[in-house]
Amino acid sequence: MATSPSTAPRDDRPPAASPVSLDRANPEAEIARAARAYSNWGRWGADDVLGTVNFITDELRLAAAGLVRRGATFSLAQRFDMDGPQRGWRRRTNPVHTMLDTGTDAVAGNQGFPHGIGGADDVIAMPLQCSTQWDGLGHIFDHGKAWNGRDAARTVTSDGDLVTGIERLARPVCGRGVLLDVARVIGPSVAAPGGAGAHDELPDGFAITAEQLSATAAAHGVAVGRGDLLLVRTGRYARALREGWGDYAGGAAPGLSFTTAGWLHRTEVAAVATDTWGFEVRPNEFDESFQPLHQVVIPNMGLLIGEMWALEELAADCAADGVYEFFLTAAPLPITGAVGSPVNPIAVK
Amino acid sequence: MATSPSTAPRDDRPPAASPVSLDRANPEAEIARAARAYSNWGRWGADDVLGTVNFITDELRLAAAGLVRRGATFSLAQRFDMDGPQRGWRRRTNPVHTMLDTGTDAVAGNQGFPHGIGGADDVIAMPLQCSTQWDGLGHIFDHGKAWNGRDAARTVTSDGDLVTGIERLARPVCGRGVLLDVARVIGPSVAAPGGAGAHDELPDGFAITAEQLSATAAAHGVAVGRGDLLLVRTGRYARALREGWGDYAGGAAPGLSFTTAGWLHRTEVAAVATDTWGFEVRPNEFDESFQPLHQVVIPNMGLLIGEMWALEELAADCAADGVYEFFLTAAPLPITGAVGSPVNPIAVK
Amino acid sequence: MATSPSTAPRDDRPPAASPVSLDRANPEAEIARAARAYSNWGRWGADDVLGTVNFITDELRLAAAGLVRRGATFSLAQRFDMDGPQRGWRRRTNPVHTMLDTGTDAVAGNQGFPHGIGGADDVIAMPLQCSTQWDGLGHIFDHGKAWNGRDAARTVTSDGDLVTGIERLARPVCGRGVLLDVARVIGPSVAAPGGAGAHDELPDGFAITAEQLSATAAAHGVAVGRGDLLLVRTGRYARALREGWGDYAGGAAPGLSFTTAGWLHRTEVAAVATDTWGFEVRPNEFDESFQPLHQVVIPNMGLLIGEMWALEELAADCAADGVYEFFLTAAPLPITGAVGSPVNPIAVK
Amino acid sequence: MATSPSTAPRDDRPPAASPVSLDRANPEAEIARAARAYSNWGRWGADDVLGTVNFITDELRLAAAGLVRRGATFSLAQRFDMDGPQRGWRRRTNPVHTMLDTGTDAVAGNQGFPHGIGGADDVIAMPLQCSTQWDGLGHIFDHGKAWNGRDAARTVTSDGDLVTGIERLARPVCGRGVLLDVARVIGPSVAAPGGAGAHDELPDGFAITAEQLSATAAAHGVAVGRGDLLLVRTGRYARALREGWGDYAGGAAPGLSFTTAGWLHRTEVAAVATDTWGFEVRPNEFDESFQPLHQVVIPNMGLLIGEMWALEELAADCAADGVYEFFLTAAPLPITGAVGSPVNPIAVK
Repeated sequence: MATSPSTAPRDDRPPAASPVSLDRANPEAEIARAARAYSNWGRWGADDVLGTVNFITDELRLAAAGLVRRGATFSLAQRFDMDGPQRGWRRRTNPVHTMLDTGTDAVAGNQGFPHGIGGADDVIAMPLQCSTQWDGLGHIFDHGKAWNGRDAARTVTSDGDLVTGIERLARPVCGRGVLLDVARVIGPSVAAPGGAGAHDELPDGFAITAEQLSATAAAHGVAVGRGDLLLVRTGRYARALREGWGDYAGGAAPGLSFTTAGWLHRTEVAAVATDTWGFEVRPNEFDESFQPLHQVVIPNMGLLIGEMWALEELAADCAADGVYEFFLTAAPLPITGAVGSPVNPIAVK
Repeated sequence: MATSPSTAPRDDRPPAASPVSLDRANPEAEIARAARAYSNWGRWGADDVLGTVNFITDELRLAAAGLVRRGATFSLAQRFDMDGPQRGWRRRTNPVHTMLDTGTDAVAGNQGFPHGIGGADDVIAMPLQCSTQWDGLGHIFDHGKAWNGRDAARTVTSDGDLVTGIERLARPVCGRGVLLDVARVIGPSVAAPGGAGAHDELPDGFAITAEQLSATAAAHGVAVGRGDLLLVRTGRYARALREGWGDYAGGAAPGLSFTTAGWLHRTEVAAVATDTWGFEVRPNEFDESFQPLHQVVIPNMGLLIGEMWALEELAADCAADGVYEFFLTAAPLPITGAVGSPVNPIAVK
Repeated sequence: MATSPSTAPRDDRPPAASPVSLDRANPEAEIARAARAYSNWGRWGADDVLGTVNFITDELRLAAAGLVRRGATFSLAQRFDMDGPQRGWRRRTNPVHTMLDTGTDAVAGNQGFPHGIGGADDVIAMPLQCSTQWDGLGHIFDHGKAWNGRDAARTVTSDGDLVTGIERLARPVCGRGVLLDVARVIGPSVAAPGGAGAHDELPDGFAITAEQLSATAAAHGVAVGRGDLLLVRTGRYARALREGWGDYAGGAAPGLSFTTAGWLHRTEVAAVATDTWGFEVRPNEFDESFQPLHQVVIPNMGLLIGEMWALEELAADCAADGVYEFFLTAAPLPITGAVGSPVNPIAVK
Repeated sequence: MATSPSTAPRDDRPPAASPVSLDRANPEAEIARAARAYSNWGRWGADDVLGTVNFITDELRLAAAGLVRRGATFSLAQRFDMDGPQRGWRRRTNPVHTMLDTGTDAVAGNQGFPHGIGGADDVIAMPLQCSTQWDGLGHIFDHGKAWNGRDAARTVTSDGDLVTGIERLARPVCGRGVLLDVARVIGPSVAAPGGAGAHDELPDGFAITAEQLSATAAAHGVAVGRGDLLLVRTGRYARALREGWGDYAGGAAPGLSFTTAGWLHRTEVAAVATDTWGFEVRPNEFDESFQPLHQVVIPNMGLLIGEMWALEELAADCAADGVYEFFLTAAPLPITGAVGSPVNPIAVK
């Protein structure tokens, strides 16, 4: 397997204001330090299979339901079809949807059903990481360890994730959603002057810091806290919608800085989802590495991560009414043993 | 295509108390009469793609959010795996989930990622009608007509449903859910004496009537009305869980009587879902027919139908606290052009 | 469906020496004329499902076996994997191959088999038109008619080709193979001077004429005749191997001229295969058309067509020993109702 | 993974005349002894990827071509469709074939192609072990070792067989085929008296011995030797065709005795294929084991094994003309990294 679909030179990245000192030439040590510092292993017992989703309580969910003011809904899923972002890396294709029966055949009398009834059926073949998705806890390992310290070789085999399969998350992923539209708040000060979308899109390679997350929350008038389903908008998906996918899947993109690991741990959010392919900034911040923030937050922190979410409509609405919190349901399909799942998250305001 | 996977003799069916006169030997005329009487064609304009989901308004959804009292969630999806109910009819298989990368390979050092990160990816191939699902409006036709009177041959082709694809329902399927646990209310009086599960399971072939739906609602202390997402529990899935799938997919089952079409139309529910393979009673009520209630309610009424929902946990909770209404989110995956979608519905009480 | 993946302007095509008069502005009439002139409808009876494969007799096959002089074999198949030529047109992807069990899991002790046995299994999902293939007789229609004058709407439905499925060709596609290496014979006189591969590759858009086919056969010292499995090398695949796929799938390419239809009919070959995506020249020769030679030869002539064959090794051997005829077995996988099949053709010299 | 789909009690098996002493209670020792005795590791060098297929030389292939007397062909493949033998064990389904475009849509004018051309495309999803197939050398391991002593964990990963993928066998699997119709020669003396098909079908659980293979060859007047592609007919497939698949996939069946390993090694055949699911007798001959002959012959001997071949037509022809040798081409699809491949073997007499 190739280690990365993108090898754009680091120099192309705009400077990221990072107040946390990061030794960019020493990923091993930095990753190890963060993994140790922000580990949640054992926090919910040795048998835990939910990770930070444990932070969501019925009380928090009840309070979140109280955020519904208008009854308006927003789907945060991209469309699942052949026009999606995938280009074949790691055998990730776009979804292939085919018909088993059609209206055309019904009208042509080819179906053999009685009394005028006709039907259409269909089939899909898709990677579970092809579009709007949750990364399950079995998606990433750190030095052979899966979530909660388990042996990855015994946890995720050819038979799937035998312990932390995505079906474990079928019920609880529902609660308070908070949108941090970093692109809208920070974008104008960092985008190339005069560039298209400069006002509300972060440039590729832009590493969002903890300070910028906090500043965005402050600008929105929301506080991010325990059990929240946090959505971070970078504007990258808007750019893809406008300019075409290009290398949306695996290429350069804005995203969370490696240095946000502590903030994510401290805030005790239940999940974080972005409008980018890879959640964290691309190219990654170390001279040579691959998704180091994933390596810290999934197997060590037990954090649920969402990728390729479609945040444009919701963000426009939040900008319009100034309300950045809502009730959010984002239940994965309970595919037994899956290390991820496509999802159609629904925000209700 | 075979017309039906099940040809159990009609005599096996228990008598269904049906106050509505039904000429069982004349399905063509009965279907035509019901289709005409309960048609919603044109009701929401010539371009409508939502059908009865139009009944759900923001106001109703806002009110539904107010039903959340505890913040408890219930997943109403069966698990998606090879141990599902499908037996191959109409090329419907159970989901085939395979791994593109595993923890075993990560530990064995086969992945080539730097600094100790490892990963797992996966793929699924499945019929969209294989497990817990919504039937899209393009799933069933009546004499060559799809929902709203459209030509089925131009609506659902080999390229999928070009007009009413399930992606149209990505956003709105969220509102008040009501469970009618007909099995619990009516079951004891109709089940075989002393039979296993006799107290809360309807027998195969039992046709639930409008009167029984109303009686169940009355017993629960709920009223079913406009925009509701109605769930009807027959207990058939509980029997499958206990005894094995057998012919759950396509075989004999309790379900809605053909005669409930008027009730479904009058109540103006947005959707109906059951815990059975086929929503309506099996074998069907005419001497020779195939899913005649589908033929009336999908293309003519524009009703959203859910099948193979897992209602056991929710039903147990409703029986315990006596509350049969809740907030329900059941957003399909927005698979472009699909005539159905797997779904993980989440009820919040 | 898009009508064509390639819309390169006609002017880019090098002039093709075409002694047959062709009204390039009038495809409808030209296609109709050729379809009528070269139709084989009824030639092998009303029930025929084999088309020109009928030309292969046991006698011809016996004679072909006599062509084996050394016992050397050549595989004429491209490799089936994610690195293939497809780019998504008509939902054609490259093959997705996934493992159900691996050696890594066997060694890790994850399989549960007794006494040290371990195993690996795998799965493939692929369009039947994704790589080296035969086009079945149900692959192309002419004004609603399939091979032998059948109604296409009753022949190839959502259930597949009910009459001329590729399984019909499971047994007979075996006989005398003849390679016409047009690129090697004609290439030097038509290629761009000094261009890479100029000596044995035809340029994109080059339409091979009947005269050039005959001249190549004469240069090789072979006669093409009844029942032959004819292979035509253009060198396009060699260029793709060297330069990358580019738009190999659907883009510009050398190939048979529309005007060869008569020659193909007269010679009574059983099949023709090329080393290109589309068998006939691309862009096509009419001002606006799509694969007009297919339209004539598949549904009207009943000709078996092979595409994306890997002819390089065989061609090198033929050039070395001067022998361009051989025993050829090219049995499709008998996929019931398929309109095409991947194939690994084996030439024996 | 379950260790076996079949657990029929051993006592149901008819007694097998086995002159080779076999300690049925000690599979570990017996397997180890045979693996050591019949190993071909290193025989063709450390880099070998072909195993016993190395026995086929051009000379042998040339001689085999001389066996063609009439030019008659026989397809030895079962049909690939949903009506196949698979029942889901190890996620093995039957092939799912779906259409991407149909004749019905062409006739309905839904395709948008110009000038009356219409087309049909299709897709398949299937396990490579679902029907008539070759087991690649990476299909089975012995105590963590793959063919030629390689580490299985480095040879067959989630990325497929990196060394001995079935694409390695694309070219050479072609030569002299020999049919041993054991069922026809031995069947009458071992079948239940008066049973259907008693004259030419071996009973389930019947273990074919080396002596019976030799006796059958003698009765046919053929000698089995180096480089032969050996076909062994048990009649099990004929029974499935007549009675339905039942537990053809994994259940009880006649097949080669574990004790034939030495004979297979001595004769230096290039490959062996049977008309059964599993090549060797089922249930296996040890008190508790799983496919022990596979464990010896694939990873240790490097033997190519074919399963689920359709031998009925060929066998009938051989019985009619008394000729049991022929030219055989059985080229796998070159699916990169596959541990097996569907195949349509063609015998020419």
